[in-house]
Amino acid sequence: MTSFAKPHAPRDTATIVERLQGMLASDLAATEALLKERAASPVAIIPDLSGYIVSAGGKRLRPMVTLAAANAAGGARPGTHALAAAVEFIHTATLLHDDVVDESDLRRGKAAAKNVWGNSASILVGDFLFARAFTLMVETDSLEILGILSHASSVIAEGEVHQLAAASRKDLPTEEYLAIIEAKTAALFEASARAGALSAGPQGAQFADALAAYGKNLGLAFQIIDDALDYGGTTSVIGKTVGDDFREGKSTLPTIIARRRGSDEDVEFWDRALTVDSQKEGDLAHAIYLIRTTGAAEATLAEADAYAGLAKTALKALPDSAWAQALADLADFCVSRAH
Amino acid sequence: MTSFAKPHAPRDTATIVERLQGMLASDLAATEALLKERAASPVAIIPDLSGYIVSAGGKRLRPMVTLAAANAAGGARPGTHALAAAVEFIHTATLLHDDVVDESDLRRGKAAAKNVWGNSASILVGDFLFARAFTLMVETDSLEILGILSHASSVIAEGEVHQLAAASRKDLPTEEYLAIIEAKTAALFEASARAGALSAGPQGAQFADALAAYGKNLGLAFQIIDDALDYGGTTSVIGKTVGDDFREGKSTLPTIIARRRGSDEDVEFWDRALTVDSQKEGDLAHAIYLIRTTGAAEATLAEADAYAGLAKTALKALPDSAWAQALADLADFCVSRAH
Repeated sequence: MTSFAKPHAPRDTATIVERLQGMLASDLAATEALLKERAASPVAIIPDLSGYIVSAGGKRLRPMVTLAAANAAGGARPGTHALAAAVEFIHTATLLHDDVVDESDLRRGKAAAKNVWGNSASILVGDFLFARAFTLMVETDSLEILGILSHASSVIAEGEVHQLAAASRKDLPTEEYLAIIEAKTAALFEASARAGALSAGPQGAQFADALAAYGKNLGLAFQIIDDALDYGGTTSVIGKTVGDDFREGKSTLPTIIARRRGSDEDVEFWDRALTVDSQKEGDLAHAIYLIRTTGAAEATLAEADAYAGLAKTALKALPDSAWAQALADLADFCVSRAH
Repeated sequence: MTSFAKPHAPRDTATIVERLQGMLASDLAATEALLKERAASPVAIIPDLSGYIVSAGGKRLRPMVTLAAANAAGGARPGTHALAAAVEFIHTATLLHDDVVDESDLRRGKAAAKNVWGNSASILVGDFLFARAFTLMVETDSLEILGILSHASSVIAEGEVHQLAAASRKDLPTEEYLAIIEAKTAALFEASARAGALSAGPQGAQFADALAAYGKNLGLAFQIIDDALDYGGTTSVIGKTVGDDFREGKSTLPTIIARRRGSDEDVEFWDRALTVDSQKEGDLAHAIYLIRTTGAAEATLAEADAYAGLAKTALKALPDSAWAQALADLADFCVSRAH
């Protein structure tokens, strides 16, 4: 049984990712080589656009989960590198399409690809990377892995459509919010961890369910924190642009809780301010004020913390190892981003 | 060796597709059932939108090629039905994305899905169907088939991006036009026929190359005719909306040939009229006039005819059968649409 650092007392969060990157150095290098090699095309826009977003400083969280899960379950193999690259391509394809769908102008601190190359190129290069992801997965030599990732890909799209249809609901129930983020975000973390375990060879299968549970709960914690960060988390000093979800009129956990706990006047505010066309100057600042004063920020973080805890609990089925510890630390890291 | 009807003397074209549909009745019914079943989702927009386009009267040409190729190569199996449905889902996903990319308002004579549900839903439901295609393909139990179709999918996207970058070139060389349509259209026909053959079991592999060559050349003939039909083919009486490519300023074989054969004045006309913002009333009629009077319409059809001939020649490697004959007739049908 693995022992874990106490929640709320993670090791220095800045170093958690760096330490995992160090442990995975050769696996990540093999994955990066594939990401570059398989985005190649004689049609210049394709490597240009995909290189722009793939190298735009993503943390490679999903490949790291894939690779660490494989190592925790017996050892990464060449097929694991192909899988890790495939998972990052799927993620990149969804980012390219999301930016068109959400009309976001910034991604990872740079102009969104669609603002440089246009919506059409972003849609089609997303399709290209998605197809290349499946070509990479064929190299894992496992129909089971292809089944897991193709299923996750349809669940992601389902979650995105669900969000499109429901996230403008002012009275979006917490459970429906969680169903949306489980589909659009947690499903890929879950599939990455499960497939990572399976890619480690026959002995990996016995850890697949535990690692899948880890991935799913990690993904939920990650997305809840992401949604909290869109309102600045719990501090006022933040490195991330805030208010994207707010401007799109998306209900997320912080707004759902703040509205539920708010006065009649607050409810009126939320219902007007989360209607895209009726937003006014100063609304975002007031939204952040309400999220802080109703305790919605803390409650949102507590929810993320609970899922991170479930992720770590799932790891207890694994043999004690530096890999299991690193995955546990990663769950703490995901939550710590908001403090 | 199979004997074929003479080119230019196809059997009654209206009945070619009906006869093949009759021969494939039970295979097509199994495929249709899968198309309906696998587009299901608790998120209502998904079955609504995909049902709208899947049932909008497409001819199921790609599933028919898949199923007939399998039958010609030894017999369709349950995996063949999953493959045929997957191919149609991939095709449908590209249609949904193309309509957004091309800003087309009509598809199969109805309002494009994006005009009913919006661009975002069309992009995301396309992604969903694409993912479901890969889940279906896992059921063929063949990594080789998954490799063929994932490769074809990346080639299609590559062709679409190439078209985006190059089709507005006024001096697009014929060879570059052919490279674009080979990627965006012929690659899926080629993959459908090759994978269809492989899905028929081990004995199908020996016919895979011949059927792939058939599919590729059929796809080229099909797209060339489609591009000719956008200018009314060779007759004035047509059932299809004309001028979509023209309005988008796309160079296609009819315009490439008409421009090449035209006077200096004609070249000036093409260079202005194929620039979207400088089109004038009456330009389309003049374009059709030039395509007819320069013989570009006939030359375009002759090019399609040549590829249909190559498709039929490829079939000579197959044992004589009603299936091989039906595939040969289908090549004639593709060309006959323009007369």
